[in-house]
Amino acid sequence: MSTDKKTGIGVIGCGYWGPNLIRNFYQLSESAVVQVSDLDEKRLAHIKELYPSISTTTDYNELIRNPDVEAVVLATPVRLHAPMGLEALQAGKHLLIEKPMALNTAECRDLITAAKENDRILMVGHTFEYTSAVRKMKEMLDEGILGRLYYVNTQRLNLGLFRNDVNVIWDLSPHDFSILLYLLGGKTPNGVRATGAAHINPEVEDVATVTLDFDDDLIAFVQASWLDPKKVRQTTLVGSKKMLIYDDIEPTEKIWLYDRAVEGPAQYDTFAQFPYTYRYGDITIPRIGGTEPLRAEAQHFVHCIQSGETPLTDGYSGLRVCQILEATTASLKSGGARIELES
Amino acid sequence: MSTDKKTGIGVIGCGYWGPNLIRNFYQLSESAVVQVSDLDEKRLAHIKELYPSISTTTDYNELIRNPDVEAVVLATPVRLHAPMGLEALQAGKHLLIEKPMALNTAECRDLITAAKENDRILMVGHTFEYTSAVRKMKEMLDEGILGRLYYVNTQRLNLGLFRNDVNVIWDLSPHDFSILLYLLGGKTPNGVRATGAAHINPEVEDVATVTLDFDDDLIAFVQASWLDPKKVRQTTLVGSKKMLIYDDIEPTEKIWLYDRAVEGPAQYDTFAQFPYTYRYGDITIPRIGGTEPLRAEAQHFVHCIQSGETPLTDGYSGLRVCQILEATTASLKSGGARIELES
Amino acid sequence: MSTDKKTGIGVIGCGYWGPNLIRNFYQLSESAVVQVSDLDEKRLAHIKELYPSISTTTDYNELIRNPDVEAVVLATPVRLHAPMGLEALQAGKHLLIEKPMALNTAECRDLITAAKENDRILMVGHTFEYTSAVRKMKEMLDEGILGRLYYVNTQRLNLGLFRNDVNVIWDLSPHDFSILLYLLGGKTPNGVRATGAAHINPEVEDVATVTLDFDDDLIAFVQASWLDPKKVRQTTLVGSKKMLIYDDIEPTEKIWLYDRAVEGPAQYDTFAQFPYTYRYGDITIPRIGGTEPLRAEAQHFVHCIQSGETPLTDGYSGLRVCQILEATTASLKSGGARIELES
Amino acid sequence: MSTDKKTGIGVIGCGYWGPNLIRNFYQLSESAVVQVSDLDEKRLAHIKELYPSISTTTDYNELIRNPDVEAVVLATPVRLHAPMGLEALQAGKHLLIEKPMALNTAECRDLITAAKENDRILMVGHTFEYTSAVRKMKEMLDEGILGRLYYVNTQRLNLGLFRNDVNVIWDLSPHDFSILLYLLGGKTPNGVRATGAAHINPEVEDVATVTLDFDDDLIAFVQASWLDPKKVRQTTLVGSKKMLIYDDIEPTEKIWLYDRAVEGPAQYDTFAQFPYTYRYGDITIPRIGGTEPLRAEAQHFVHCIQSGETPLTDGYSGLRVCQILEATTASLKSGGARIELES
Repeated sequence: MSTDKKTGIGVIGCGYWGPNLIRNFYQLSESAVVQVSDLDEKRLAHIKELYPSISTTTDYNELIRNPDVEAVVLATPVRLHAPMGLEALQAGKHLLIEKPMALNTAECRDLITAAKENDRILMVGHTFEYTSAVRKMKEMLDEGILGRLYYVNTQRLNLGLFRNDVNVIWDLSPHDFSILLYLLGGKTPNGVRATGAAHINPEVEDVATVTLDFDDDLIAFVQASWLDPKKVRQTTLVGSKKMLIYDDIEPTEKIWLYDRAVEGPAQYDTFAQFPYTYRYGDITIPRIGGTEPLRAEAQHFVHCIQSGETPLTDGYSGLRVCQILEATTASLKSGGARIELES
Repeated sequence: MSTDKKTGIGVIGCGYWGPNLIRNFYQLSESAVVQVSDLDEKRLAHIKELYPSISTTTDYNELIRNPDVEAVVLATPVRLHAPMGLEALQAGKHLLIEKPMALNTAECRDLITAAKENDRILMVGHTFEYTSAVRKMKEMLDEGILGRLYYVNTQRLNLGLFRNDVNVIWDLSPHDFSILLYLLGGKTPNGVRATGAAHINPEVEDVATVTLDFDDDLIAFVQASWLDPKKVRQTTLVGSKKMLIYDDIEPTEKIWLYDRAVEGPAQYDTFAQFPYTYRYGDITIPRIGGTEPLRAEAQHFVHCIQSGETPLTDGYSGLRVCQILEATTASLKSGGARIELES
Repeated sequence: MSTDKKTGIGVIGCGYWGPNLIRNFYQLSESAVVQVSDLDEKRLAHIKELYPSISTTTDYNELIRNPDVEAVVLATPVRLHAPMGLEALQAGKHLLIEKPMALNTAECRDLITAAKENDRILMVGHTFEYTSAVRKMKEMLDEGILGRLYYVNTQRLNLGLFRNDVNVIWDLSPHDFSILLYLLGGKTPNGVRATGAAHINPEVEDVATVTLDFDDDLIAFVQASWLDPKKVRQTTLVGSKKMLIYDDIEPTEKIWLYDRAVEGPAQYDTFAQFPYTYRYGDITIPRIGGTEPLRAEAQHFVHCIQSGETPLTDGYSGLRVCQILEATTASLKSGGARIELES
Repeated sequence: MSTDKKTGIGVIGCGYWGPNLIRNFYQLSESAVVQVSDLDEKRLAHIKELYPSISTTTDYNELIRNPDVEAVVLATPVRLHAPMGLEALQAGKHLLIEKPMALNTAECRDLITAAKENDRILMVGHTFEYTSAVRKMKEMLDEGILGRLYYVNTQRLNLGLFRNDVNVIWDLSPHDFSILLYLLGGKTPNGVRATGAAHINPEVEDVATVTLDFDDDLIAFVQASWLDPKKVRQTTLVGSKKMLIYDDIEPTEKIWLYDRAVEGPAQYDTFAQFPYTYRYGDITIPRIGGTEPLRAEAQHFVHCIQSGETPLTDGYSGLRVCQILEATTASLKSGGARIELES
């Protein structure tokens, strides 16, 4: 296999998510998957069968030292992100890390520093920022269609896949936090509260609700659960002018824009009447294109490597999400107390 | 109109909910609506047109003193529940109060005391406890079909109807709290946390999330909103054996029982594998009867008056819900802190 | 009860549908229900309890001769529509007949003639033409939003209510036929074919599919069933520019307008390629007002009586629907053959 | 690539469906895709990129003569099925043909004869017979859960993909006919009627409704359309004891079993009452496994080649479906007349 003009990719981790990354980098014309590493030889044999051209190894150090590997993609358990990522950056490789970026913000900062020092691209796999649906919402918000944002409500629920290394917030909510920060164009929350409980593995919360407070009374509720009978992937954005539901389970009708709003009374104190005005207009379901987001993400990573551009979901993006995650853990430990965040 | 064998009912308040109460007590063969009171003469004229036999008055004192009125039904703003209710009980009338029972637990206790002293029936309008769907869930829980209850998640969302006298938790969540307490057979939460925000009327929260902690790691999330584009009335019960979704928007397919569960690892620490077992079985949607719950509630009230029985949703039931409501307000004021509840 | 300015209404038949008619005419400020007739004394007692001011009788002749009754509303089995309707018209009463208008087109014509000779209003209860959803579709079609209409597909399915007097097409499809004729602004089909089968009562078809051919290749499929597990009330309109689904089960989101279309090849014969162009745009769900259609129908009837206007759903409208019904019966009898209709 | 124990497969046609067949035979451990043929070199290059081990050719004769190809899979336009299929059989290859099997029953019989004479496996790609959902329904019917089957209603609707070589019935309805014949265990219809219209390409019907009459008053309505805004893949089975809806669009909740039935009156003639009994019980949604049906189909083909077993969807199965298709065309031509079928 020639990697003349193609960026050579090495993927560490072939468990649940790794094969999707391999497939996408394999199918891109701009990149070639050179090597794949995993501790499990069966997984490697399976990859070899699907893609005979890819070399495999149980020793990730071999992959990191492989001169044909220009960029490393990490799809390992979270606790390995920072150590393996630092090694890769120090070996001069570009780096794409699955979310969440690391176990804590200190590790995130180390990764950012190492990327700077070695002048390498560092990107975090906040895949949803590469979906057509989230881009469409961003567009609508930026055009002011929703007016001032009042309230965001998200639910990411299903049965499984339980993890032992991180709790359900660290597993599922990075998606919602990264979507939210992207939609808000960089606004970060002032305060974070989290409540939850651990039922199956007593060390690891499997259901949780997070509240994020932003400036201007914007509040966001973020629910995550591995213990729900039905898969739910839903985000509601309520603005002063319009409201929107984004349902990621729907194959095509993902965004419902409601021309609805309510206006309150100016100055009113009689109990018997409620001088609120409700506006109920049409619903619009915009046509959303159907590219696989992981393909767009992979393409963006390769593009940044080849052009030197800063990724949309760079290390700072990963750090901001990790700040919120860290705060949720602190809040859970202190019984739901509000954790202040510096901006 | 003769009220020979029929229990004479007087209804105070003809706003949004009053007419439903009037219609149901009117149509029962065991009761007769004798008099209706409201400050708004237009509302009274409307009632008079629909039911020429009912006498109307703008003076609720007249209704309370009316000897043909044996029982008073209060559908007024919450702040009038206690003062009017006390007057009615002291005048020897039985009393049905709309939810929430009163502005605080002190008022609830006063009402309970007054009912005892005057030997009158005191009932609170926790309508959902009279629905076939909630009864079906209670049956399932009592039979142990769900196993040990892990987690309850409820959403009661829609656009409007905004109120000025109470916030969205006091308006909508009494339904969920009363359902929950009923399902748990009296178990009350140990701790209550609430977060929320006020967007339309800066004094009154219009979106909120409440967390209730019970014994045995049971946790309940209760969301309420007047600011959502879509009407949602959903409760998820997750047990160790089965899971259930109760969707009250569905006209007939209200309860979905999922034969699904997850079992965790006994003792496990390797990161690379997830030895959880997931069971995915059939879904069952039981046939639910369709009686109007308000009719069942009205019938139960009249039955208790005529038989002397204690209502299912008696003053203590109202008090317990009010305790939680009071705690949510305290938690909101202290930025989401956990408020301990005595049992 | 005074009927000074109110039009006096007499309703014959208090079975399934009658009480809805009574309630609506009762609540209108322009009309008063004077008398109700039914063979079943229990039904009459029930009506009397709900509306003490209405006089009741088991003898419909008494109602027709009642001088306070200005207009008769027929909610009886179909075979009584023509004989009772003729008596009423000849007695000088205005007449509203439930759908289908009569057992055959000869009876329809007799009723039309009698109405003319006695100068009375004759209206048929094609309720759906008074719904906001059907009016909205008519508006869209008249504005040309859908382009040229290609194809209409309707399903009206549920379990029960079985009838012995007419088959499922005569029971359910008058709704679809009247909607269709209304939408097409008077266009009637050139040919009618029907297939069906009778399972529960061997004399009466309980499932059926009707095909209607119109000019310009417009084709309509109309399905009716008393034997389906799920209630379906759906109409699809496919035009050259846009497409629309009208789902009457949905409480508010009844009309889905799809900005979708396909354009075919001009002249093409190679098999390997399909040079069709598909356009997939947004979906719009217009806000539909929520008046009870039966109220609008009742109001229109009274308005026509008081103003002398011709009803939207007059005798000819009933006749046109009956022509199609008659043709479906002929087609069923001849094994599905195409029955030509004169325009 | 070694094909020692693996059955060597050659695929002719890489358009819409071919790549799915290639992928499945490629991934099976029991087979190897040796060669692929198509007229379009771009398609071949695409396949080569995905599977470098597969040889490609624009000359299907080369593939048929390739000694490493033991079995030919035809995914070409329908008019090429018989000529290419006969060549392949005569060259000693086993044969899998996409549905519909051929342009007419004469061609089907020729293929069956050729397969017999050359002692080769002949199978038709009625993929749905290999789905878990259809197998589950077959099981339920065979166990008598639904009782006597009254009525089947299917809808297979969407926008596109238009074809020029066959009409919408020939394109989409083979799925429904093969499912139906499979469920009925070989029962074939006595009569076939079809109505439809051609809007986009005036030579090719794009919407149609077919009625099939079976013994014992069983009737089936089969709708097909390339001109609907929404994708629908639904089958309703109504039996004397239970009813079932199979919705193939649903990712997991595909089968809804309704414990509902109706029983008619024995002997009744009074019009005012309807002594039908309706039973409304629970709904059950059985858990359906999720294997890709095309994989199961591919596996079955290879298994039959290796074992000599007769395929579930053999030539006769293809012939029976083609008989119905032929009858629909005859019925369409004669304006919807009933076409008798020999069993």
